[in-house]
Amino acid sequence: MDTQSFRKHAHELVDWMADYFESVEDYPVMSQVKPGDILKQIPTKAPNQPESFDQMLKDFNDIIMPGVTHWESPNFMAYFPANKSKGSVLAEMLMSTLGAQCMQWLTSPAAAELEEQMMNWLREMLGLPESFTGVIQDTASTATLCALLTAREKATNYSINEKGFDERKFTIYSSEQIHSSIDKAVKIAGFGIEALRKVEVDDGYAMIPEKLEELIEADKAAGYIPLCVVSAIGTTSTTAVDPINEIGDICLKHNIWHHVDAAYAGTALVLPEMRWMSEGVEKADSFVFNPHKWMFTNFDCTAYFVKDPVSLVNTFTITPDYLKTSVDGDVKNYRDWGIPLGRRFRALKLWFVIREFGVEGIRAKIRKHIMLGKWLAQEIDAHSDFELMAPVPMNTVCFRYTKGEESQLDVLNEAIMNKINNSGKLFFTQTKLKGKFVLRLAFGNTNLEAFHVENAWQLIQETASEIKP
Amino acid sequence: MDTQSFRKHAHELVDWMADYFESVEDYPVMSQVKPGDILKQIPTKAPNQPESFDQMLKDFNDIIMPGVTHWESPNFMAYFPANKSKGSVLAEMLMSTLGAQCMQWLTSPAAAELEEQMMNWLREMLGLPESFTGVIQDTASTATLCALLTAREKATNYSINEKGFDERKFTIYSSEQIHSSIDKAVKIAGFGIEALRKVEVDDGYAMIPEKLEELIEADKAAGYIPLCVVSAIGTTSTTAVDPINEIGDICLKHNIWHHVDAAYAGTALVLPEMRWMSEGVEKADSFVFNPHKWMFTNFDCTAYFVKDPVSLVNTFTITPDYLKTSVDGDVKNYRDWGIPLGRRFRALKLWFVIREFGVEGIRAKIRKHIMLGKWLAQEIDAHSDFELMAPVPMNTVCFRYTKGEESQLDVLNEAIMNKINNSGKLFFTQTKLKGKFVLRLAFGNTNLEAFHVENAWQLIQETASEIKP
Ligand SMILES: Cc1ncc(COP(=O)(O)O)c(C=O)c1O
Ligand SMILES: Cc1ncc(COP(=O)(O)O)c(C=O)c1O
Repeated sequence: MDTQSFRKHAHELVDWMADYFESVEDYPVMSQVKPGDILKQIPTKAPNQPESFDQMLKDFNDIIMPGVTHWESPNFMAYFPANKSKGSVLAEMLMSTLGAQCMQWLTSPAAAELEEQMMNWLREMLGLPESFTGVIQDTASTATLCALLTAREKATNYSINEKGFDERKFTIYSSEQIHSSIDKAVKIAGFGIEALRKVEVDDGYAMIPEKLEELIEADKAAGYIPLCVVSAIGTTSTTAVDPINEIGDICLKHNIWHHVDAAYAGTALVLPEMRWMSEGVEKADSFVFNPHKWMFTNFDCTAYFVKDPVSLVNTFTITPDYLKTSVDGDVKNYRDWGIPLGRRFRALKLWFVIREFGVEGIRAKIRKHIMLGKWLAQEIDAHSDFELMAPVPMNTVCFRYTKGEESQLDVLNEAIMNKINNSGKLFFTQTKLKGKFVLRLAFGNTNLEAFHVENAWQLIQETASEIKP
Repeated sequence: MDTQSFRKHAHELVDWMADYFESVEDYPVMSQVKPGDILKQIPTKAPNQPESFDQMLKDFNDIIMPGVTHWESPNFMAYFPANKSKGSVLAEMLMSTLGAQCMQWLTSPAAAELEEQMMNWLREMLGLPESFTGVIQDTASTATLCALLTAREKATNYSINEKGFDERKFTIYSSEQIHSSIDKAVKIAGFGIEALRKVEVDDGYAMIPEKLEELIEADKAAGYIPLCVVSAIGTTSTTAVDPINEIGDICLKHNIWHHVDAAYAGTALVLPEMRWMSEGVEKADSFVFNPHKWMFTNFDCTAYFVKDPVSLVNTFTITPDYLKTSVDGDVKNYRDWGIPLGRRFRALKLWFVIREFGVEGIRAKIRKHIMLGKWLAQEIDAHSDFELMAPVPMNTVCFRYTKGEESQLDVLNEAIMNKINNSGKLFFTQTKLKGKFVLRLAFGNTNLEAFHVENAWQLIQETASEIKP
């Protein structure tokens, strides 16, 4: 493809992109295809000769689009959002054109230095302590793995990196409600999942610090070495907020690494009125949140903050001859700050997104989302046929329909959810709380308006009343 | 930003992008800024109010562009290329607009099924055995870590995932020339770097299989459990090719996992005449190569193939309630095929790239690159003031200037390299071979023509003759 054709086709795509943004609510939110529907339309063999871009775009429209679940729709209320904004998409266009691979300073100085400054911006925006240093990673899963590995190495004076595990047995702590990425990281790092103690939670699904300390003391007495506590600001099921401050004190007392997983809800810390969630965070050793979840930044973009960057770098650094540069002593080479070597120029997205809205603009959106969460919680609370299943500190609402026999309610609620998701009008997902099937709405879309939440609530009520138990 | 402004600005960017492609050779290849030059131009605090896109684009041009090292330039001959093509950039535009987070089938069925078929295409294009199943990952570093973890779990019947390491001590093998990502993965997975045996190489920098087997046998006799051999098709310094077939036999005999790192050179397997490199690959357990290096696909896009996907999934799977879907039994949920949970829609890039060129088009480019490698090797070989430092099976050429005292040559060659890189006309890097500083040119750019390599060689000769030892 020569540059002239590229110019033409890219202009065509821009119109496709803008049209998509205008019409995204016309698509079924959850793709309505069945397993195998797409696969059977893609030839089993690669073409030998070039094909025209027109054909590619036609196939994209005809074959791919029906199989897309529309994360861009404000009616997407499943999981947590993987958010974005138009400025973020514009940044992706530039990033992909430069195609800079930002493994170290020299391979694109602007990427390294913009990353440093964007992490400073984010730190201040969230009210994190000045003693924290940030780095961009791909996902929170990876950042949490980095935290566990750094804790492992710091506690053993880097001896597991050198000699592997010995007879010492480490333990890791998190609440029962912690995200599955912590389980995964515990396995990868070689601790074994039995080393992960799941601490009991209170009625609001937040970790009970006394239970944490009991476990730590019992483990110590049994000869284990408590290594790390992973607390959550905003758990995945219900956005419960663990008591960071008390957990911090316990970690300090017992000399344990404290990692805070604020993957989703970290963004809400832009609001001074939400800073109660992070009280005591200055005692933590590491903190992760995902601008790609609720800060309008295209996936992937995770912000990982640490108190002691030296131990992070010491855990990961390896400099073979072919990567040495003459400035290595004077610059940050972010390849040593995480697991992968190659890195995209992700800082550009943050720069565009934050300037597109300004901090006040981001605050306004987050405030609206939280306000809508409170509103829906009240509606549900006031409705005799529904019950709230968890407190609603932000914009994730867990509830269920209760008209029927208790033994039927799981099936009934699942039927409501499936019927709605299959209608294409709204897409949301479930969780389980105290063994019960729970409907879960999480609405943080960039373009969310009050009527989207009102319509969703209306649709759920109507569907519930139509379904026979 | 409303959709109308987006449409306007995105069209402006397309012109910027096409202009960049046209003028990329006018920029200094390696950024000429000094540490701190960019940082000091970025405000230390985020703006409170929105800023205009015009201002953002102006800052991008004024502040960021001078700090960019131009991976897009055909005069970029450093490291290995992080390649792309115009079709790949067009795909990134669509991917970022949809913003689909492809962690599991339901979150975008088209992404999951296109990924499955693209991996089939690549498998056939590279002549890999039909028994291999592929998955897209972010980087080769991560894929190699997956290989080590799967080997670890399969060999212990998943007991390290469950209970952590016990008294068993595992050993891992690779040549002295292996990429640093293997060292990193060995550490992360908890083996300790002392467990990594670096096998001696022959004159061509390829692993000596007899030395491998000696080490394995000695380790067994000493009570270690040999777990995994990582061989390379195309090492980083010199693109040496380890004898995959013999290594495969040794691994089969001793029941050891064989992982093939073809991160860069895997792409050359599209050429039937290069398939000698992968002879015996059907005996391997896993194989990784990076379309983002030499197959014209924007970073990041790594293709990871395994013989036994069940053990891969068993190593990583965790399905919490909030991720369950009604189709889980019938579909591939790629979140269980690697480390991160969230995933981009990377298959779209491969679809566009392969169709943009057709397999024959890709072959023609790779053939040209290899031909130019051979040409340059001959030129250097024929020149009395230069010497080749390694065989040149592909398009990576290691050599040095030899006019001067042996004790001066390292300094002299480094001076030549720095002078050229600082001129902005060409960017290449060094490696070390047998303790000597070696100039290393790797040219695999999508738009590379013979004259780029000829000019590079001319410039190196001129610069060498100008520099006083
Ligand atoms: C609390 C929490 N932590 C971590 C993650 C993992 O995020 P990622 O996909 O960035 O790894 C999630 C994802 O939903 C989450 O909710
Ligand atoms: C042989 C080899 N393996 C692995 C890698 C790591 O690649 P990635 O950045 O995708 O992790 C490289 C990078 O140059 C390489 O040359």
